[in-house]
Amino acid sequence: MIVQLEGQQSILSALQSRQRKFKVVFIKAGAKAESFQELLSEAERQSVPLKYISAQEIENLAHGKTHGGVIALCSPKRPNTFEDLEGIFRRVTNTPLLLLLEGVEDAQHLGYILRSAEALGSQAMLLKKHLWDFDETAVARASSGAFERLPLIRFSEASEMRNLDRFNIKLLGCIANAKRTIYETDLTEPVALAVGGEKRGLSGKLREHCHGFVKIPTAVEGASSLSLTHAACLLLGEAARQRYSTPKSEIRKSKSESNSKNE
Amino acid sequence: MIVQLEGQQSILSALQSRQRKFKVVFIKAGAKAESFQELLSEAERQSVPLKYISAQEIENLAHGKTHGGVIALCSPKRPNTFEDLEGIFRRVTNTPLLLLLEGVEDAQHLGYILRSAEALGSQAMLLKKHLWDFDETAVARASSGAFERLPLIRFSEASEMRNLDRFNIKLLGCIANAKRTIYETDLTEPVALAVGGEKRGLSGKLREHCHGFVKIPTAVEGASSLSLTHAACLLLGEAARQRYSTPKSEIRKSKSESNSKNE
Repeated sequence: MIVQLEGQQSILSALQSRQRKFKVVFIKAGAKAESFQELLSEAERQSVPLKYISAQEIENLAHGKTHGGVIALCSPKRPNTFEDLEGIFRRVTNTPLLLLLEGVEDAQHLGYILRSAEALGSQAMLLKKHLWDFDETAVARASSGAFERLPLIRFSEASEMRNLDRFNIKLLGCIANAKRTIYETDLTEPVALAVGGEKRGLSGKLREHCHGFVKIPTAVEGASSLSLTHAACLLLGEAARQRYSTPKSEIRKSKSESNSKNE
Repeated sequence: MIVQLEGQQSILSALQSRQRKFKVVFIKAGAKAESFQELLSEAERQSVPLKYISAQEIENLAHGKTHGGVIALCSPKRPNTFEDLEGIFRRVTNTPLLLLLEGVEDAQHLGYILRSAEALGSQAMLLKKHLWDFDETAVARASSGAFERLPLIRFSEASEMRNLDRFNIKLLGCIANAKRTIYETDLTEPVALAVGGEKRGLSGKLREHCHGFVKIPTAVEGASSLSLTHAACLLLGEAARQRYSTPKSEIRKSKSESNSKNE
């Protein structure tokens, strides 16, 4: 199977991450070499063939509008498994922070949340397998390269969450009627944050594997809830805030205060 | 001009908000009355004609896939202006919190961030006028009703930000190289949070009108930045956290600590 990547950022990230085999990189004839310098050097270093084709040929090949004159054909990204977590956590120094998404229905949304997950310090994403296969080109384009760098583990059964136990990762489900808010929960420990689909929320089977539940408080009564990726983004943002922008003593204080109030 | 709304939630929100004139509501013939009860009662109360048409006719009319058997034709939403702010702030008890977006390029993204803005306590959104007119049907659908309830003020010139002065609202620009993070900034005061387009960031003209700048710290070096709506969502989420989930004393403490460290 051949996958098409579009745009300098996606292609350069893919070359650098070395998770794919490249067949060819097409570049618009007459494009200024200096604007593609990094990509050209990297492709040359890896002996990937470069082919200059006309602007019209590029347009004919392109699925989207943000290719910027460069398109690559390559293998799909190697699928990640729970087995990879050991190596992933060995390579990083920060405490495990995983995002689990159950009901994402749109390739572009998946790309955006991969991008946020990477920026906010998540080391991998867990994704419930769907009946559909998402469009890798669209995911890669929306993710600004994060799709190439962030491991994406697709799982079928909730019971696979047992794989998190050996890393002491707590699975926290985000549900509307949880007692505790994300602000009252210590997210500096190894955690996997689980968000369900918009229509049905987190499935019963996944809930059974959760160590605890959290909610994102909304400010206004009668307001609609957050979209799936915005909810996931806020969860990861709060984990990042607690981990990198708050003295540890304050989280503990805030946590114990709220515990005595709400439980 | 006639606008088409699709789906029970959008249409019910629009009826309840009374910002549009309704011409007709189409309902799929044979649909169970009880599943549309609230919508039917509201339409009847406002003497909006109901028309039952076949499933095929509904499909032919629909732009999207989430109409659920109900489509309405109505006037566009009345455009909001800065003049409306006085009435808006009179009706609410919480401190002014506005979101300003400069470069949103997608109707669906606009819908999602309207939804988050409402949920996180923003009273209105300021939106830079574009060359294009966004598709109201798509915005309304993605916003889950928030588009009907949250005032949307479209502006042409950065100088219009002077209208915020009389409410003592500080305009804070979100830029990558700001000295202070959103976590070190007091967002419990009246603020308008400004986010620029992804490619160019906040425009120079809008920066001139900012009272200060903030950044969202990313956890990982080399990671891509957040998408526009995810950045906006995190900004609003932090404002909501400070306002509704944190004892005031702690924000002050955290703020003064970080000031002495970073400035």
